[in-house]
Amino acid sequence: MDRREFHAVALAGVLAAMTASARATSQTQAPDELHDMSEFPASWTRADRIAMVLYPGFTALDLVGPQYMFGNLMGATVDLVAETMAPVESDTKLSILPTRTFDDCARELDLLFVPGGGQGTLAAMSNERLIDFVADRGARAGLVTSVCTGSLVLGQAGLLRGYRATSHWVALSLLSDFGATPVNARVVEDRNRITGAGVSAGLDMGLRIVARMRDREYAEAVQLLAEYAPQPPFNAGSPATASPKLVAMTETMFVGLLEQMRAVSKHAR
Amino acid sequence: MDRREFHAVALAGVLAAMTASARATSQTQAPDELHDMSEFPASWTRADRIAMVLYPGFTALDLVGPQYMFGNLMGATVDLVAETMAPVESDTKLSILPTRTFDDCARELDLLFVPGGGQGTLAAMSNERLIDFVADRGARAGLVTSVCTGSLVLGQAGLLRGYRATSHWVALSLLSDFGATPVNARVVEDRNRITGAGVSAGLDMGLRIVARMRDREYAEAVQLLAEYAPQPPFNAGSPATASPKLVAMTETMFVGLLEQMRAVSKHAR
Repeated sequence: MDRREFHAVALAGVLAAMTASARATSQTQAPDELHDMSEFPASWTRADRIAMVLYPGFTALDLVGPQYMFGNLMGATVDLVAETMAPVESDTKLSILPTRTFDDCARELDLLFVPGGGQGTLAAMSNERLIDFVADRGARAGLVTSVCTGSLVLGQAGLLRGYRATSHWVALSLLSDFGATPVNARVVEDRNRITGAGVSAGLDMGLRIVARMRDREYAEAVQLLAEYAPQPPFNAGSPATASPKLVAMTETMFVGLLEQMRAVSKHAR
Repeated sequence: MDRREFHAVALAGVLAAMTASARATSQTQAPDELHDMSEFPASWTRADRIAMVLYPGFTALDLVGPQYMFGNLMGATVDLVAETMAPVESDTKLSILPTRTFDDCARELDLLFVPGGGQGTLAAMSNERLIDFVADRGARAGLVTSVCTGSLVLGQAGLLRGYRATSHWVALSLLSDFGATPVNARVVEDRNRITGAGVSAGLDMGLRIVARMRDREYAEAVQLLAEYAPQPPFNAGSPATASPKLVAMTETMFVGLLEQMRAVSKHAR
């Protein structure tokens, strides 16, 4: 197919899930070729098995940025996996329903994702059932991924030993406790490990994963759909640009939590 | 207080909620002044009543970006409000639990927020109970806000008549059907109406709202906590920078939905 068709097909694929019902009931039909999924190249649709881990106290935005991107992968199944089917409350009191338990989750995954958090992540690092699950599925998953302090959970499960990785800036140095090499970057890809920096880095990471699981045109279509052309109103999003006092204070506030995480990391796999 | 104390206190306030439990159990105590909430200036803590509307088919990322920011406002109550207490499923199949029903929600709000979506937003625009709720609370709320096509719901409730506003780029022109002036901008503030562009614009809007409800230092602390220093891997997040074919195709795909929304808008308040 030529480049023009390529673009048309890519976008149609990305939007299919969101607009399927609209098109089904619409009186104005889009061109026929956009309706017939059989005309999409086989590579646009793939039955990826994606599992995103939920635990009490996780940071919802860590998870929902990538979940938006993964949710637009044609053919993929995106499960939210937790210890039980009970709602899981985030650190900002947003409760999300799991779709699978650890026991019910597919054993062979194309992608495993772990979000970060504060006190909740410390508890997750000490939760043997959760660490067992992450270690087991992560050992065979196509991609092993995290945002923010989710990388400490991957580390606790022994999945970052010998890998370059990142985390929330305040927790970055802890990665070396797990045998990983801390890298100060927005997203770090080392073989099949993909880790994002703090919280909002999940949007950047999610798009890079879409490009890796499909291709760049697909990822650009998702970016356009998300209108992801960020304009932060201030320039304080990184310790390199925020006021030094703000940075120092944030570090001070997390001293206790990080010390507890460091203690737990002595029992890492 | 001098500027140095100002910064210290601001950040302590922002992080209080997230690190309270960590500090309570930590063996390493942060400096005492960070623990005593009574030392915060009164303006850092305010019992804001915030209501974020949930409806079936909403886009979770529209809501969770701002919810992260609002969830870090010391003293605020952030309710997720829906028609019933049943879980509400997003367009990417993420189910969130409401914390209040429309009937139970506080009548006087400091902030009302409405997320966008696709087919679900069309249904919300025709849901009289939802539009009644938005029109009633919005008439008296301190700030009336939306992300993405959530502005069409505000418009349907008659809340944007005579106001400048924005929406997802693909739906922007519809705002004039509600007597609003469409503005092609990431975030539009007109008196107490604050509207964000598509999906990811909620992060930028959320920070601007934090600055407005507290002040700039507070918002910068939240930005640093969210590590919001975005690095989109591609440059396709706006119709001005994406490939023209990608833009045209997205527009084509939404023709049917927008036509249905335009028909519903004839019944706007």
